[in-house]
Amino acid sequence: MTPARPSDPYPDISWWGWGDPAQIPTLGADVRRLLADALGVTGGDATESPALAAVRLPPLRLATGAARELASIVGSDNALTDDESRIRHTRGKSTPDLLRLRAGDATGAPDLVLLPGSHDEVLELLALCTHLRVAVVPFGGGTSVVGGLEPSAESFAGLVALDTSRMNALLALDERSRTATLEPGLRGPQAEALLAERGYTLGHHPQSFEYATLGGFAAAGSSGQASSGYGRFDRLVLALEVATPVGTLSLGRAPASAAGPDLRQLILGSEGTLGVITALTLQVRPIPRARIYEGWRFSSFSEGVSALRTLAQDGPLPTVLRLSDEAETVLNLARPEQLARSTREGGCLAIVGYEGAAEEVAARRDAATRVLDSAGVGPDLGAGEAWERDRYRGPYLRDALLGAGALAETIETVSFWSSLQRVYETVRTALSDSLTAQGTPPVILCHVSHVYPAGASLYYTVGCAQLEDPVTQWRTAKRAASDAILQAGASISHHHGVGIDHRAWFEREVGELAVNVLRSAKAVLDPAGILNPGILIDAR
Amino acid sequence: MTPARPSDPYPDISWWGWGDPAQIPTLGADVRRLLADALGVTGGDATESPALAAVRLPPLRLATGAARELASIVGSDNALTDDESRIRHTRGKSTPDLLRLRAGDATGAPDLVLLPGSHDEVLELLALCTHLRVAVVPFGGGTSVVGGLEPSAESFAGLVALDTSRMNALLALDERSRTATLEPGLRGPQAEALLAERGYTLGHHPQSFEYATLGGFAAAGSSGQASSGYGRFDRLVLALEVATPVGTLSLGRAPASAAGPDLRQLILGSEGTLGVITALTLQVRPIPRARIYEGWRFSSFSEGVSALRTLAQDGPLPTVLRLSDEAETVLNLARPEQLARSTREGGCLAIVGYEGAAEEVAARRDAATRVLDSAGVGPDLGAGEAWERDRYRGPYLRDALLGAGALAETIETVSFWSSLQRVYETVRTALSDSLTAQGTPPVILCHVSHVYPAGASLYYTVGCAQLEDPVTQWRTAKRAASDAILQAGASISHHHGVGIDHRAWFEREVGELAVNVLRSAKAVLDPAGILNPGILIDAR
Repeated sequence: MTPARPSDPYPDISWWGWGDPAQIPTLGADVRRLLADALGVTGGDATESPALAAVRLPPLRLATGAARELASIVGSDNALTDDESRIRHTRGKSTPDLLRLRAGDATGAPDLVLLPGSHDEVLELLALCTHLRVAVVPFGGGTSVVGGLEPSAESFAGLVALDTSRMNALLALDERSRTATLEPGLRGPQAEALLAERGYTLGHHPQSFEYATLGGFAAAGSSGQASSGYGRFDRLVLALEVATPVGTLSLGRAPASAAGPDLRQLILGSEGTLGVITALTLQVRPIPRARIYEGWRFSSFSEGVSALRTLAQDGPLPTVLRLSDEAETVLNLARPEQLARSTREGGCLAIVGYEGAAEEVAARRDAATRVLDSAGVGPDLGAGEAWERDRYRGPYLRDALLGAGALAETIETVSFWSSLQRVYETVRTALSDSLTAQGTPPVILCHVSHVYPAGASLYYTVGCAQLEDPVTQWRTAKRAASDAILQAGASISHHHGVGIDHRAWFEREVGELAVNVLRSAKAVLDPAGILNPGILIDAR
Repeated sequence: MTPARPSDPYPDISWWGWGDPAQIPTLGADVRRLLADALGVTGGDATESPALAAVRLPPLRLATGAARELASIVGSDNALTDDESRIRHTRGKSTPDLLRLRAGDATGAPDLVLLPGSHDEVLELLALCTHLRVAVVPFGGGTSVVGGLEPSAESFAGLVALDTSRMNALLALDERSRTATLEPGLRGPQAEALLAERGYTLGHHPQSFEYATLGGFAAAGSSGQASSGYGRFDRLVLALEVATPVGTLSLGRAPASAAGPDLRQLILGSEGTLGVITALTLQVRPIPRARIYEGWRFSSFSEGVSALRTLAQDGPLPTVLRLSDEAETVLNLARPEQLARSTREGGCLAIVGYEGAAEEVAARRDAATRVLDSAGVGPDLGAGEAWERDRYRGPYLRDALLGAGALAETIETVSFWSSLQRVYETVRTALSDSLTAQGTPPVILCHVSHVYPAGASLYYTVGCAQLEDPVTQWRTAKRAASDAILQAGASISHHHGVGIDHRAWFEREVGELAVNVLRSAKAVLDPAGILNPGILIDAR
């Protein structure tokens, strides 16, 4: 087939917040009152956009000759050095990332943004950067929340952002095998639109869906809101084409194989440290005809967790399965206007969704309903609709809260069912104790959003008043939570990745020997260490 | 819990064939006539056991002092140097392996067989072997069919077989997470018996089930006959404890994680080259109450493949799903006594099985029957029963055929659905052409036994008359088939692994750069290269 590309350019993501600033909600008087009363937050207006011109960019470090040589590979139209482009490629979308940019701090901005158009151009760029000892940050949607776009480039001759957005084609569709080969720079909606023209979907819808890219999903271990039905992103990956500084890796000739270790898995989760993914062959499915999302209420978090576990272990598995704890059910951060109503209803709200062929969905829903009905109250179709409408809106609310003087951020982990309750409480306590000790007692919400036969994820949202140095304030709390995660035997991340924020805990989690294995793989594929130095493993 | 161990010692596997020689079938007059008429095979009696005393063992190369030092780690009762023990740990169970042992050739036999009893003893052994530069072949059930137990130890100070059979405990059972932690030396039936006492099963039943071990399943990329329902073995693995020459790797804190690449996947399929798996935490399930296996007939292989693809892509997925081609349906090698009946019926036979809770099985079977019914004829419960009875008997028939002067061996691969028919024909032709050119036109049977949404496996059984040098005869044919597999874009193995037999093709399949990554991982974990040198990757 002729490669198919998105017809329209995709809107830029806000440089100081999430997505389109026009989508940031205005906090109503009741929410502001609650923020003031409960958290002591009294702040400004979230919609005030900071001035781009006020951002302090670091001086250029890349030599002019080197920049010109690099630009010649992609063409001068695709080599950007203007301030806005540099700022737009500075760090990701964690709360500390945003707080620093809002404060005008663009430390670590790349010297140059390059937009290669093909695998061969990426190969050529990486070889030249190796030769020139220029560090490279592979840049997809720019939505990392773990410092995955903040390499330590000090010891290099400059930093280049390798933006994949021009590599945005659907290259091939194999309808018999139901696989599609796609380029890494496609954002979620772009990939879905190209596939929808042919009747297919990936079904991968994380909260970052609207702005994150396929390459990022693969490189950072993404998992979507419908992971119960479609699986984590890594489960969709059948083949990968990877450009490294020393050549090409072509991995995956079949859905599964016993030909050695599955080396696709070494690239998945490698966060741009081993190579740049330039094509992905992914499992696709026919667009589901039927979609139903509904709410179920449980009297407590542990009752709800127990129902989720039954569905995950004995089936049938809904396509979407998530459960808010009591606090999240009450505060329902994504829909502050619903606050009063939610409070009245209490308990814990689960969202249960089914997607598929009409008959199959009906049968699966019937069987799941028998399980849910034994412990919960439902179905509440209104709750399902509300979830669907607001499913990508969480980050906009964060923008509003940050603007109002609140600190808002998320933390996530995953563990086995047998330790889930302990992990839930331990991490919650660690966050609460740290922030309370800092004088800013928080509100902490949590939900389970990804289930497996053996365990589930936990996703916390934390809100409190900002101190004068909110970055240090948050880092202190996050350190306490990360320690608690490891002490409770859970993993430092279920679907956000490692970046620099989790690096120390990642090393504790897998051990130094495992990290040495990764270092050795990096030494083979990236001998000069130019790719995302300091991300995932320490730069050496 | 107190570790639970099997109550009885497990019977030894025959050193010159499969399993228990008493199980080798006697070929009836009709089968012998067919072998003579169709293949020109006129041979002896399979039940004649070769004499152990006639086997030529290589001279011991390990220095006495080194052997004593190594033995002291496990205790002298667990260090075996007698001829029979050495012969029993020589190579695996491929047809060339058996032909050479039957001919009295035990080249490459280990100098010493060590049976460590714990992770710490394995660690100590590997460190000492590194110090002494003694090569180590980790030995589970000894059922490799790809030369996975035939390391190149010439440049080392000797070869030690590290037999895991004493490490055979169920260490822990987490009923809430449905996980069990087991030691690697448990054979399939031993593990199932220990779990059954608590009401659980792994559901992993490859043809080698009766003799292969959990450690081998993990290290060699195993897939069971019920893989549609239970998944490949790697999908059951939640955590691994691995002893390496430089220390311990403890991998897996949760069912899934975004904390870097999934390094469990580097150990799975590593075939004992990176470390010795000393404990596995595996997903278990309640023992299914209902089990139904049935036959379905399709008019052609491609009709049958199409029905399997529909079930794999749109569901519902039976627990067992396999389809014989026309030739295998006719010859049904595992049940030669049924030959006449099968011939009459013609077409292609599929075996479809369901395991689970009674109600769930009934619903799934109903829905799958609607799919099967649209293109096939069934259900034939007799065919299902016969399959269940004979599911582990294929290797015994090979013993009988080898004894009768036939050459019999298998080859397997996996590809995407879109190329499955092409792969099927290309590999078949390559095998047929090679053996016909050698003067021994073969009969070639094939089945699909593992399906995925994107593709399926192909498993060939080849029979022909033995030439004077049957090992070279088979290797010539296998080389042609392996070339054909790669040329058709398929993988060199779906579930047998790489060993030394597939090493050259494995390197072509993944590329030199990927192999260099494995080499670098090995250099970190096994700096002296003592673990299975020459297996998977070439010894350096």
